[in-house]
Amino acid sequence: MRTAMSDLLDFDVPFFAFSHCRDVVAAVTNAGGVGVLGAVAHTAEDLEIDMKWVENEIGPGATYGVDLLMPSKFTGAKQGGLSREELRAQIPEEHRAFMDGLLDRYGIPPLLDVPREQRVKRAGLQVDPKSMTPLLDIAFAHDIKVIVSGLGSPPAEVIERAHAAGVVVGAQAGTVEHARRHKEAGVDFVIAQGTEAGGHTGDITTMVLVPQVVDAVAPLPVLAAGGIANGRQVAASLALGAAGVWCGSVWLGTEEGESTPAERERFIAARSQDTTRSRSFTGKPCRVLKSAWTEAWEQEDAPQPLPMPLQSMLVDRSRRRVQRVAHKKDSRAPELLSPFIGQIVGQITSIKPTRRVMTEMMEEMAEAIARLDDIMSED
Amino acid sequence: MRTAMSDLLDFDVPFFAFSHCRDVVAAVTNAGGVGVLGAVAHTAEDLEIDMKWVENEIGPGATYGVDLLMPSKFTGAKQGGLSREELRAQIPEEHRAFMDGLLDRYGIPPLLDVPREQRVKRAGLQVDPKSMTPLLDIAFAHDIKVIVSGLGSPPAEVIERAHAAGVVVGAQAGTVEHARRHKEAGVDFVIAQGTEAGGHTGDITTMVLVPQVVDAVAPLPVLAAGGIANGRQVAASLALGAAGVWCGSVWLGTEEGESTPAERERFIAARSQDTTRSRSFTGKPCRVLKSAWTEAWEQEDAPQPLPMPLQSMLVDRSRRRVQRVAHKKDSRAPELLSPFIGQIVGQITSIKPTRRVMTEMMEEMAEAIARLDDIMSED
Repeated sequence: MRTAMSDLLDFDVPFFAFSHCRDVVAAVTNAGGVGVLGAVAHTAEDLEIDMKWVENEIGPGATYGVDLLMPSKFTGAKQGGLSREELRAQIPEEHRAFMDGLLDRYGIPPLLDVPREQRVKRAGLQVDPKSMTPLLDIAFAHDIKVIVSGLGSPPAEVIERAHAAGVVVGAQAGTVEHARRHKEAGVDFVIAQGTEAGGHTGDITTMVLVPQVVDAVAPLPVLAAGGIANGRQVAASLALGAAGVWCGSVWLGTEEGESTPAERERFIAARSQDTTRSRSFTGKPCRVLKSAWTEAWEQEDAPQPLPMPLQSMLVDRSRRRVQRVAHKKDSRAPELLSPFIGQIVGQITSIKPTRRVMTEMMEEMAEAIARLDDIMSED
Repeated sequence: MRTAMSDLLDFDVPFFAFSHCRDVVAAVTNAGGVGVLGAVAHTAEDLEIDMKWVENEIGPGATYGVDLLMPSKFTGAKQGGLSREELRAQIPEEHRAFMDGLLDRYGIPPLLDVPREQRVKRAGLQVDPKSMTPLLDIAFAHDIKVIVSGLGSPPAEVIERAHAAGVVVGAQAGTVEHARRHKEAGVDFVIAQGTEAGGHTGDITTMVLVPQVVDAVAPLPVLAAGGIANGRQVAASLALGAAGVWCGSVWLGTEEGESTPAERERFIAARSQDTTRSRSFTGKPCRVLKSAWTEAWEQEDAPQPLPMPLQSMLVDRSRRRVQRVAHKKDSRAPELLSPFIGQIVGQITSIKPTRRVMTEMMEEMAEAIARLDDIMSED
């Protein structure tokens, strides 16, 4: 298949896969698409390991990339970023008490008191230039072909560095205004992401957003994102003027995906109306499965979510507390689990190999396009 | 064009137009589509006049229809409907005071004190079987080809009556479960409507909902609704498996449409993110342009919207108070105006004749489908 994205990158099919999981990234690239590793919460060490692993799986020169978050607004933006300790000091006691109270009500035990030196190193969301630089250093030291900002216009120095390294730059947009800003910043392509997407998302739908973004940033190619998990949805995205698709949630239903068994069960059971957008995870609206957690944060007694990255720092320990016991019999932890996933969760009915998901999407896409021809040719 | 809908109805293009305005209904049918008159708030007298007018415009045997709301839940449902007076008595004083307070704050003068016998007769939303019957009598006495329930599964007697008269029955669905219920009720086709639509709407997007509904009600044909206002969006809908499209908001930007000059200006200025879903108009979530009105109803001091049809009875006078002075210089009424419209409002950039909108949609649809062929044929 050849679209406007083919001028920028080598691939057989313009299916871009966003995943935090290196297995999915490698599987999609190996199946002819483009795997993109979500690395915002990787430690530098983990990113190095994962990228080496992916490159070993896909072989030299194959097309893959990384995705980071580059918001212009975050706590400490004026200072170019703050230390973890400085940030931690800004989390109000009210918020901690609210979070603890919720988990206590559900009988979630505290985390084990592991000595600091034995703790697993956690990166948190590295959204400021200072903490992002080590990740960029590693990404550019590897053979990536594409780098994407999942939030915000990439700063000029990131775009320059990418272009100097022959790396193509994309950025995600939830409105026409975001898309125009990305184009002005100098990106090579735009991802127009509808509200139905999992994770960070706006409120305009893919159907409405994609044609408007295509028109606004022409001649830049646009990938459609949000609500795309089968071949009819791929064909529809191309019909809207997209030069390819950017999928995230669909990989959570694959064998390679990082989801836990408990999460997979919930995905299979969930309907499309069982997701909600909540600011309670990162401070910005994220689409997740509804749970007692998202409900609690909607109540009138709940505090306002904190700005990025304070909110994710606040809830990080609580999420680990919940996850640690989610598999235990009789635990109420599952009621509090809100995995990030889009409205296509209603389409996940079984867990499949990534390659099979890709193949089915391609076949169904071709059928859908053939059907359109029939509709046009008959009277 | 020939789709599964062609087995049910005669048309040149499977573009269904929902409009409260007879001019749009006639123009769409005359341009080869299917005009459907939204009649839930028509008085019997007005419906008779409008249908006669439409039939005169489109000529004998042409394909058009009517749309009513047939919810199973409404105040007085157990009693089979209540009189206007009985309903009015159920509106709490708190709600009236809230509404009056809002309008007073914006300096909106009260309605003129017109003697009862000189008042224009208003029907309100006729959602109970008793008040709906005169409308059905008129509809079936005319030469309609299709009747649609915009809300709720059509009752058995409506479906029987329609089928006896050779009239095709459709019903709108915002979830897969609604769609299955409609199929069980015996409808001939389903309209899968995404959250981006104007007016009553759920929260699943068109991209996600349509393929799921197509699979759930097969072999019944499905029309896609919500977010469809240009030819790329039509092509995308067909790619999703729809047998046609059902458009509403796009006609509000036509010369034939019923919108006021002030509303047209707002549509042209508005972006897709300027709509919101609010229960403050009918008691059920409706997508409208954001305004001081919708904001006020979101505040913590606002009462909970009332069930259907009490909420529309409550706000009816207030909406007329606002509209009566919306054109006046220096009036703050425009700040309170929230016309019903979908997210495609961001695509309305000028007011065009209905026929031109249809022609442009057809041409762009054909181009989009041709582009898909190119993508598939090139390597």
